[in-house]
Amino acid sequence: MQFDSLWHNFHLATMKSGQYHPIYDAAIAVCEGKIAWIGPAAELPDSQCTEIYDLSGGWVTPGLIDCHTHLVFAGSRVSEFEQRLNGVSYEQIAYQGGGIVATVKATREASTEDLVSSGNRRLRHLLQDGVTTVEVKSGYGLDLSTEKTMLTAARVLGQTLPVRVVTTCLAAHALPPEFAHRADDYIDYLCTEVLPALAAEKLVDAVDGFCEGIGFSPAQIQRYFDAAKLLNLPVKLHAEQLSPLGGSRLAATYRALSADHLEYVCEDDVKTMAEAGTVAVLLPGAFYTLKEQQRPAIDLFRHYRVPMAIATDLNPGTSPVLSLRLMMNMACTLFGLTPEEALAGVTIHAATALGLSSSTGTLEVGKSADFICWDVDTPGELSYWVGGQLMKQRIYQGTLTL
Amino acid sequence: MQFDSLWHNFHLATMKSGQYHPIYDAAIAVCEGKIAWIGPAAELPDSQCTEIYDLSGGWVTPGLIDCHTHLVFAGSRVSEFEQRLNGVSYEQIAYQGGGIVATVKATREASTEDLVSSGNRRLRHLLQDGVTTVEVKSGYGLDLSTEKTMLTAARVLGQTLPVRVVTTCLAAHALPPEFAHRADDYIDYLCTEVLPALAAEKLVDAVDGFCEGIGFSPAQIQRYFDAAKLLNLPVKLHAEQLSPLGGSRLAATYRALSADHLEYVCEDDVKTMAEAGTVAVLLPGAFYTLKEQQRPAIDLFRHYRVPMAIATDLNPGTSPVLSLRLMMNMACTLFGLTPEEALAGVTIHAATALGLSSSTGTLEVGKSADFICWDVDTPGELSYWVGGQLMKQRIYQGTLTL
Ligand SMILES: [Zn+2]
Ligand SMILES: [Zn+2]
Repeated sequence: MQFDSLWHNFHLATMKSGQYHPIYDAAIAVCEGKIAWIGPAAELPDSQCTEIYDLSGGWVTPGLIDCHTHLVFAGSRVSEFEQRLNGVSYEQIAYQGGGIVATVKATREASTEDLVSSGNRRLRHLLQDGVTTVEVKSGYGLDLSTEKTMLTAARVLGQTLPVRVVTTCLAAHALPPEFAHRADDYIDYLCTEVLPALAAEKLVDAVDGFCEGIGFSPAQIQRYFDAAKLLNLPVKLHAEQLSPLGGSRLAATYRALSADHLEYVCEDDVKTMAEAGTVAVLLPGAFYTLKEQQRPAIDLFRHYRVPMAIATDLNPGTSPVLSLRLMMNMACTLFGLTPEEALAGVTIHAATALGLSSSTGTLEVGKSADFICWDVDTPGELSYWVGGQLMKQRIYQGTLTL
Repeated sequence: MQFDSLWHNFHLATMKSGQYHPIYDAAIAVCEGKIAWIGPAAELPDSQCTEIYDLSGGWVTPGLIDCHTHLVFAGSRVSEFEQRLNGVSYEQIAYQGGGIVATVKATREASTEDLVSSGNRRLRHLLQDGVTTVEVKSGYGLDLSTEKTMLTAARVLGQTLPVRVVTTCLAAHALPPEFAHRADDYIDYLCTEVLPALAAEKLVDAVDGFCEGIGFSPAQIQRYFDAAKLLNLPVKLHAEQLSPLGGSRLAATYRALSADHLEYVCEDDVKTMAEAGTVAVLLPGAFYTLKEQQRPAIDLFRHYRVPMAIATDLNPGTSPVLSLRLMMNMACTLFGLTPEEALAGVTIHAATALGLSSSTGTLEVGKSADFICWDVDTPGELSYWVGGQLMKQRIYQGTLTL
């Protein structure tokens, strides 16, 4: 057999079917960026290979997948964070033009290059922490031209850095000022102009909305999803974060890739998600930052076998999180996931939430050779340590990077 | 004027009197490891200097000080963490010999070299995150020989890595099995044998105890502190973490450097601490990991002007935290500190908690040239971002390291 590269001297967690499925003293052979052979090093067949890499110990896992981020945006919300802790009220900050309004304003004023450059700075943190696939949402433009700029910046990031970028159009994130009190008109605009134009330019891999009292109603989201369906775009939804509106059930009826947040999900919602194969994306960074009290119903997801993914929700207002591995710890500590569930949540289930489970998310022959070698003695350490840089080596599409 | 090195092209937060006191477009000149000049670059006097470093932007702060860690220990508690999340009860884990007992057993079996090597691995994470001074406690030996080994390992770490290590004897951490049901006898042993022997070898910079229902009573701690006093060793105390026993007041009557944890501190305790100049050390990592509900009374510390420090409490059971910067975020998010208070908590007030405020903790002429250049646009970002590697350059005693 002929391989492009051969990697050895580590244990590995394949994460097949969401479990560690460990292989001790393992080896991985790569051909054309894909896994060509994987197993115990002692069983490696006779082979020819020019590049041989000794990873000198540690554990290898699939490259991590951050399936929910808002990492492309302009401006900064740091002063707002600082003001709030100095006692300035939310009302006062809103009055000053703070909150998402500030991010939308700054993003509308930014060029593609601005967005690429600031997004790059944030994305590199995720990469240094083991991410090889990342989803990036629009949603701070709220008009065709800026949504397009944001999605273009996301595509450019995927061409610039060694990471697979998946784009999501989140135009139904908030109501822009020019449509104040006209939410239905805004949804019409998204359905008839924004989504078709962005889809025609192939800038959109999926369509997302914010279904919440302070966002859009299920009826509005339904019209938006119908438009996505006409364009053959898969959907997903921010649902049940602050109140139970039935967004997750709605998403499931559209066979959504995922429903995200889900603090207020009920048993019927979970059943419907299970039937539709919709992934539950948990966002403990937002839960932590907002000091939420209501935890998503982990036991229901387990009982009905809804796959749980975990993501950073990286965004300037409610989740300024630069580490996906830290979200594994928060999912365990705050939500009670097991370390194995947490690792599945940032690998195979996160891949499923992006519609990529056939090409990444586990270490198996035929999948992309995206893997991380960690300086740990057991895979449970990835969830155990709070902070720290545990990544030793990062391999993306068979190439050692970063 | 003649300098060994000159650093420029950054803004800086001096942290004098616990405030940012920013200097824009600043420069720092170093002589013999100490700050010889600091101010706006434009005001730099005529000088001779062979080494000139352009830090190319960002903010400089004092090197961070982690004033409460248990980073020297043997063994691993990861499987315990994993078991607990898989539904194994605390009782069952204790029955298996888990908990602190497991760490004491492993530490007693370890050599100095073992402890240095595993401690080094953990300490490097702190250094990569901006720490230039770290306190290391003993307390997993609970007998003279192992406490000595632990403190020796801590001293070796300070000689091996570019970091100032301060040692604390925490022999009154827990009751070792050989003294079961004989806590008073154990305290006698510490007072008459352990403390004098360790002090004679100059292994102890301060003495610490665990005052708690599951630890030692105030009366026992009092005898232990009396022994420390006889040896001219400053004291500090784990107090009021899980219940209000009056440990912080007791500590203050001994003019303790610090009282640490303090979730159940009351107003009288705080007053006494203020009078004694005892620093309140907040440990949000343990609060987070243990899912505590009772927050330390930040408003009382502010009102009575008790300096608040923040530390990782890095330990295998209740705070497996490898990032002090993340503790700044947790202090803001979980306890409501301002970003400025958080930065003061890991610089000047942490220095005071170690009795080092005259030599480190702020950027002023005459102090050690320990400083960090961060990839941020404002110092508030250090508390704002959750995770991520923001450190660009680390300067310890005037030398670029790591
Ligand atoms: Zn989101
Ligand atoms: Zn402690």
